[in-house]
Amino acid sequence: MAANRARIAVDAMGGDHAPDEIVAGAIRASEELDVKILLVGDRQQIEASLQHHTQAPNLEIVDADGAIAMHEGITELRRKPKASINVAMDLVKQNRADAVVSAGHSGAAMGAATLRLGRLKGIDRPAIGAVFPTLLAGKSVIILDVGANVDCRPKYLEQFALMGTIYSKYVMGVDAPKVGLLNIGEESNKGNDLALQTYQLLEANKTIPFIGNAEGRDVLSGRFDVIVCDGFAGNVLLKFAEAVGEILLQIIREELPQGWRGLLGTAILKPNLKKLKQRVDHAEHGGALLFGVAGVCIISHGSSQAPSIFNAVRLAKEAIDNQVLDRIQAYGEAIQPDNVNPSVMINE
Amino acid sequence: MAANRARIAVDAMGGDHAPDEIVAGAIRASEELDVKILLVGDRQQIEASLQHHTQAPNLEIVDADGAIAMHEGITELRRKPKASINVAMDLVKQNRADAVVSAGHSGAAMGAATLRLGRLKGIDRPAIGAVFPTLLAGKSVIILDVGANVDCRPKYLEQFALMGTIYSKYVMGVDAPKVGLLNIGEESNKGNDLALQTYQLLEANKTIPFIGNAEGRDVLSGRFDVIVCDGFAGNVLLKFAEAVGEILLQIIREELPQGWRGLLGTAILKPNLKKLKQRVDHAEHGGALLFGVAGVCIISHGSSQAPSIFNAVRLAKEAIDNQVLDRIQAYGEAIQPDNVNPSVMINE
Repeated sequence: MAANRARIAVDAMGGDHAPDEIVAGAIRASEELDVKILLVGDRQQIEASLQHHTQAPNLEIVDADGAIAMHEGITELRRKPKASINVAMDLVKQNRADAVVSAGHSGAAMGAATLRLGRLKGIDRPAIGAVFPTLLAGKSVIILDVGANVDCRPKYLEQFALMGTIYSKYVMGVDAPKVGLLNIGEESNKGNDLALQTYQLLEANKTIPFIGNAEGRDVLSGRFDVIVCDGFAGNVLLKFAEAVGEILLQIIREELPQGWRGLLGTAILKPNLKKLKQRVDHAEHGGALLFGVAGVCIISHGSSQAPSIFNAVRLAKEAIDNQVLDRIQAYGEAIQPDNVNPSVMINE
Repeated sequence: MAANRARIAVDAMGGDHAPDEIVAGAIRASEELDVKILLVGDRQQIEASLQHHTQAPNLEIVDADGAIAMHEGITELRRKPKASINVAMDLVKQNRADAVVSAGHSGAAMGAATLRLGRLKGIDRPAIGAVFPTLLAGKSVIILDVGANVDCRPKYLEQFALMGTIYSKYVMGVDAPKVGLLNIGEESNKGNDLALQTYQLLEANKTIPFIGNAEGRDVLSGRFDVIVCDGFAGNVLLKFAEAVGEILLQIIREELPQGWRGLLGTAILKPNLKKLKQRVDHAEHGGALLFGVAGVCIISHGSSQAPSIFNAVRLAKEAIDNQVLDRIQAYGEAIQPDNVNPSVMINE
């Protein structure tokens, strides 16, 4: 297996808890998952973080110089070619790694991926896909775009639908994914200009298993496996959903009975509150995927700690093992003007 | 007080539980609030519903013929001039009522209001405002638009901000309302074209107490009293939030401990689950307000039962008692070309 072992470049300098928590999560991944980790960043700082751990054999440090800070613009990417996120992307470009995981500046990660790796053929705009839990236990839904493209054209959403379908089918293991269009009503004549036009494209594209509009109430119902929307609506939804988990836990605490009944109730509930948090907390899912660039990229939350980084590496490995890139690329090549039947690619 | 008593026209034929639940809620309102209720609809059906109750003195039936069904288009409004929602709006037009409450077809209610009552001066598009609970107990936020206008221009959002500010100040009793623009980042250079342009307008308008962008995570935080957005994003958020309450209660039930510990935990928690539901359940808030038309209109959820209708009448009464219409109208007149200082109107 060693030859096929997925090689994951982890941006050790990115995120609120870098490098300690990033390194801790990466080490656990190198021990428990069949992956090789390339920790990208300041060697001295990474080695200091590594001292807390037994050295893992499947782990290597790759030098980088600096990072893009959260408050900096992505123009810094060009000014700092040796910044950790740039070096991590270069590793993929040079075929020394198969994927990048970063909890740093998400705009910078997206920018570095686009600049250094380029877009896949047939994809006009990369999209960020986030996996949400649903009301049905064990069933998730992937929503894209959640922030890469705030103003979209209908054909971008059509491409998002294709990439989401491939991911749902081959990584999430859904036999017959159901695709929905985020909208404000069930009927095909509902929605804004973008939704109205996208509906027509999705319905006409036989490669996309489109089943109709998904209203806000349908997002977490489990009725859909893939939901497409522009990055503005998707980002609002993502951040709202993240906050709602936290808000609900707080309300539950406030509404718990007081006095001895309260103490008893809380003691009984405590282990379950943790399980509850895991189900509603998006951070448990490791990160979002950047679709449409020529490399596997996982964008983790800036607040990521070791468990999130571990999950992000797992996500990256799953995308690699299931050849998500090749499948999207194959679709992209199939829809070039010379080719006429893209449906074979996705339904192979 | 009788002379000033608010007169509320209630569409008795609108909603999944019409007319029984509508009538029951209206009767309770006529008994407990200082209002006069005009029940609009089929006299025979309304009288049948009334038989379950002691006749309330502040209640009158106004005949109407038919209703706009949920599956019908709003073009039916013109084909059915005597439909209950049309007759209810006419009562306001004829100054026989001060407000309309309807749990029927929301598009029809909006259409009837616009066609029969017209828009207020200075308002280009009516907007639907929904009040959400926040993380801060006792503090709410009004979000508009949540569905009337799926494609918006920046100046519409500017007008929404003004109407929301007036509502927050005079009905919700917030001394110094804080207005936010729904967006995907805190910085002024974030967002789609609409958000970028609206930010400039809101910042330049000294009448609007604009404090910046509200991300998805800020919506329920209590940091904002008024949040403006286009009706597409707002509607997605509204329906998502409505569903989340229900979903969370279900997850809590599923994650409760099993066995004797579970029974005990559930028994202790049961009364609190109800309180929790009240806090997260949007239906408890009675309905949404239609802003910008020349009449007070409350649009209740189609699934409304008696308590929602009661709350909707209370909402209508508060809007009337606090002269929301006059205040918006005064602002609208102030911004006509001949007038130069609108700020006096809102800060009077």
